[in-house]
Amino acid sequence: MRRVLYAGSFDPITNGHLDLIERSSKLCGQLLIGVIQNVSKNSFFTMEERSQIIIDSIPHLKNVEVITFDGLLADFVNKNNIDAVVRGLRATTDFELEIQMAQMNARLYRNAVETIFLMTAPQYSFVSSSIVKEVFALNGDVEGLIPQPALDALRRKNTVNT
Amino acid sequence: MRRVLYAGSFDPITNGHLDLIERSSKLCGQLLIGVIQNVSKNSFFTMEERSQIIIDSIPHLKNVEVITFDGLLADFVNKNNIDAVVRGLRATTDFELEIQMAQMNARLYRNAVETIFLMTAPQYSFVSSSIVKEVFALNGDVEGLIPQPALDALRRKNTVNT
Amino acid sequence: MRRVLYAGSFDPITNGHLDLIERSSKLCGQLLIGVIQNVSKNSFFTMEERSQIIIDSIPHLKNVEVITFDGLLADFVNKNNIDAVVRGLRATTDFELEIQMAQMNARLYRNAVETIFLMTAPQYSFVSSSIVKEVFALNGDVEGLIPQPALDALRRKNTVNT
Amino acid sequence: MRRVLYAGSFDPITNGHLDLIERSSKLCGQLLIGVIQNVSKNSFFTMEERSQIIIDSIPHLKNVEVITFDGLLADFVNKNNIDAVVRGLRATTDFELEIQMAQMNARLYRNAVETIFLMTAPQYSFVSSSIVKEVFALNGDVEGLIPQPALDALRRKNTVNT
Amino acid sequence: MRRVLYAGSFDPITNGHLDLIERSSKLCGQLLIGVIQNVSKNSFFTMEERSQIIIDSIPHLKNVEVITFDGLLADFVNKNNIDAVVRGLRATTDFELEIQMAQMNARLYRNAVETIFLMTAPQYSFVSSSIVKEVFALNGDVEGLIPQPALDALRRKNTVNT
Amino acid sequence: MRRVLYAGSFDPITNGHLDLIERSSKLCGQLLIGVIQNVSKNSFFTMEERSQIIIDSIPHLKNVEVITFDGLLADFVNKNNIDAVVRGLRATTDFELEIQMAQMNARLYRNAVETIFLMTAPQYSFVSSSIVKEVFALNGDVEGLIPQPALDALRRKNTVNT
Repeated sequence: MRRVLYAGSFDPITNGHLDLIERSSKLCGQLLIGVIQNVSKNSFFTMEERSQIIIDSIPHLKNVEVITFDGLLADFVNKNNIDAVVRGLRATTDFELEIQMAQMNARLYRNAVETIFLMTAPQYSFVSSSIVKEVFALNGDVEGLIPQPALDALRRKNTVNT
Repeated sequence: MRRVLYAGSFDPITNGHLDLIERSSKLCGQLLIGVIQNVSKNSFFTMEERSQIIIDSIPHLKNVEVITFDGLLADFVNKNNIDAVVRGLRATTDFELEIQMAQMNARLYRNAVETIFLMTAPQYSFVSSSIVKEVFALNGDVEGLIPQPALDALRRKNTVNT
Repeated sequence: MRRVLYAGSFDPITNGHLDLIERSSKLCGQLLIGVIQNVSKNSFFTMEERSQIIIDSIPHLKNVEVITFDGLLADFVNKNNIDAVVRGLRATTDFELEIQMAQMNARLYRNAVETIFLMTAPQYSFVSSSIVKEVFALNGDVEGLIPQPALDALRRKNTVNT
Repeated sequence: MRRVLYAGSFDPITNGHLDLIERSSKLCGQLLIGVIQNVSKNSFFTMEERSQIIIDSIPHLKNVEVITFDGLLADFVNKNNIDAVVRGLRATTDFELEIQMAQMNARLYRNAVETIFLMTAPQYSFVSSSIVKEVFALNGDVEGLIPQPALDALRRKNTVNT
Repeated sequence: MRRVLYAGSFDPITNGHLDLIERSSKLCGQLLIGVIQNVSKNSFFTMEERSQIIIDSIPHLKNVEVITFDGLLADFVNKNNIDAVVRGLRATTDFELEIQMAQMNARLYRNAVETIFLMTAPQYSFVSSSIVKEVFALNGDVEGLIPQPALDALRRKNTVNT
Repeated sequence: MRRVLYAGSFDPITNGHLDLIERSSKLCGQLLIGVIQNVSKNSFFTMEERSQIIIDSIPHLKNVEVITFDGLLADFVNKNNIDAVVRGLRATTDFELEIQMAQMNARLYRNAVETIFLMTAPQYSFVSSSIVKEVFALNGDVEGLIPQPALDALRRKNTVNT
């Protein structure tokens, strides 16, 4: 696999995402991290902030590039010579939903888009961007759950809003 | 079973729904398709549009009638001499939710309402009204996923809104 | 639906099975209960005993007939003009396995065999033939979990074996 | 276990909740029922109403106290000498979500917060506050699903709103 | 809870079991570990060996006692004044089976037997006695997955059999 | 990914396996198909037969090699410079078991063994080697479910045994 895409909202990136990025980057020539501009869902960080936090979290990874996109995943993949899309799976994932999306993507371009799944490391299986934000909003400690740049960004945002 | 009800939002009807309607209609004297007027959920098509699209999609089925209703499913069933309610099941269905609803319905009328489940054909297991609308909105190709009248209606709606 | 088949090992019939039989019998002209001769699985009761226990448990049901069969379910259905096969579903069923079997059956005869699912009543959701036999073997009380004829048969078998 | 917490929205309390409260109260010295002030979710009853309905439903339980709280569950537990948090599990629960939350809570205070799960009685497995309100809103009969004080409160609310 | 039972085959005890024992022992006056004499299932270690390995693994726990038993769990609980039975849950547990067993136990003694579930720590979620034995048999490294006394016992057994 | 391993019993290979092999072979330099010599499980075909059937089924694939192995998967991977192990996932897979195995493999060699999952095509989601053999044994039609060489082998075996 030369070019692989890992897409998501990353609002913000967690250590679970980071672990998946590190492992995926070893399996391919180049890994694209696609930050989704989701118009129908309000994000906590802007798309620019979300991208910058990721960039700041992966200085040690040479074959990873952060991009942004909107529109149909299948279209993006088709236009950018992506060999496969990678997704994280955890016991607590909505596995059924993942299957439904992968089948839809396969259908949209006559099986041209392959989806490969990697398992989230067990120690991050309970971590998600939503639960991190919820705990942080209630003054809970989220160190060790997200990369340092994400933690810094959460704290800055908090200071501004107060 | 003389009269069976198949209820849903059908916003719009998909080929998965259509397959279920064709199969259910062979199992009973008359199949009612109940288009739900769901006040709490915004629909893309009006109730009238949704009904008409179904009617246009089933000219080949003689013992099927399209009706609309609001209120409690159990009440409707009780007043209209329905022998059973049919529901589609797929591996990617929220199976647990289906069970909860069927048990509630059974409870509401002292087991008078029987719910029977049919399995969605595997080739339609990833198709839902929501995913079809989402893909269409992003200019993806949804031919083969919904009946022709639904496809025409989506395109008309699109032209009007542009 | 004129003729419907409900097949199983019934080793022995439980009150969960009985509830399903009563409800299914209201949905069709005739309900066949197919006692499976399973060569690869040792049964506690012989096929004749299992059939007789069922017959003794349903004197109040007029349109139900008990038969025995081996071979492929799909073959039996095809030769005997069965309109549909009924299966019980419970939250604790192996739902995935049910889907796999139903799809295989659909495939074997070009969709001629329809499988319909009914939900087990919640109060019987934890009852299975295996768990009943296991509890009985350890001298636990299984009254109310199986019909009286099944209880009598278990006790007779127990006396003989002692 | 001396002090155990059972937290939830209880909007309103159901007979499934009540069953769990009765059983939990036998396992510990004191059971706290924590009514959550959830700012992000609109509740049907106010926090005061929800608390009062619970108090009116448990006159027979001596070691149960109703309190209200907002903020992080883990913080509340820490400050109030809670030995364990109890949660209800049902086959139709989002089991995965429960695990995720329990692991997050364990992580937040270095495993100081133990979560114990009890199973909902099968006859209440389909009952939830949401489904009760939905059925009531459509004039369905919810007697036997919620305690009498909750039923009275629903009816009063209804009269006021009409 | 004064007396709580944690029953299993423990063939042999794993670090996942040990974690559950440590946490359960904090929630009650006395924790009984019940090693099941399972006649229908061949065990790798004898019941005496399995008990001794557990005893050797918990010198630091003062309120834990190891016992052996056969027969019906519900009977044992009834005769020995057990307040509750504790079970481990993991995302990879057969959750449905757990519910079925707990409901059966509740039924057998008119709800006198309460089952409480604790979640397995995520780092042990993939560990089971079977998988440990399988890996060990293939010369894989199982250090850190089972307590030292279990590891020693596996190695002794191996030497004897060679 | 240069070298990827796809291991299984393949007793015999199905069209679901074949689809996965074709798709995996596009994602890597070389795909090894590892036929497992499973001593604890009786196989219908010998290891040699199972290997030959696969070889006969993939003349069109140039970068695929069939090998056999016993012992620990993690050991094999380690000694043979395998970059990743590929596994098929279907809605009807035992997903939990897959996660458990992948986590165990990751643990055995300090995360050196990466497992990647691909989804089975929906039209093969109900096909497994076991169900194919079961249907064939009952004289059911399995054409289209397994490659021609597997079908031929089943028929030869059948003739010999009669």
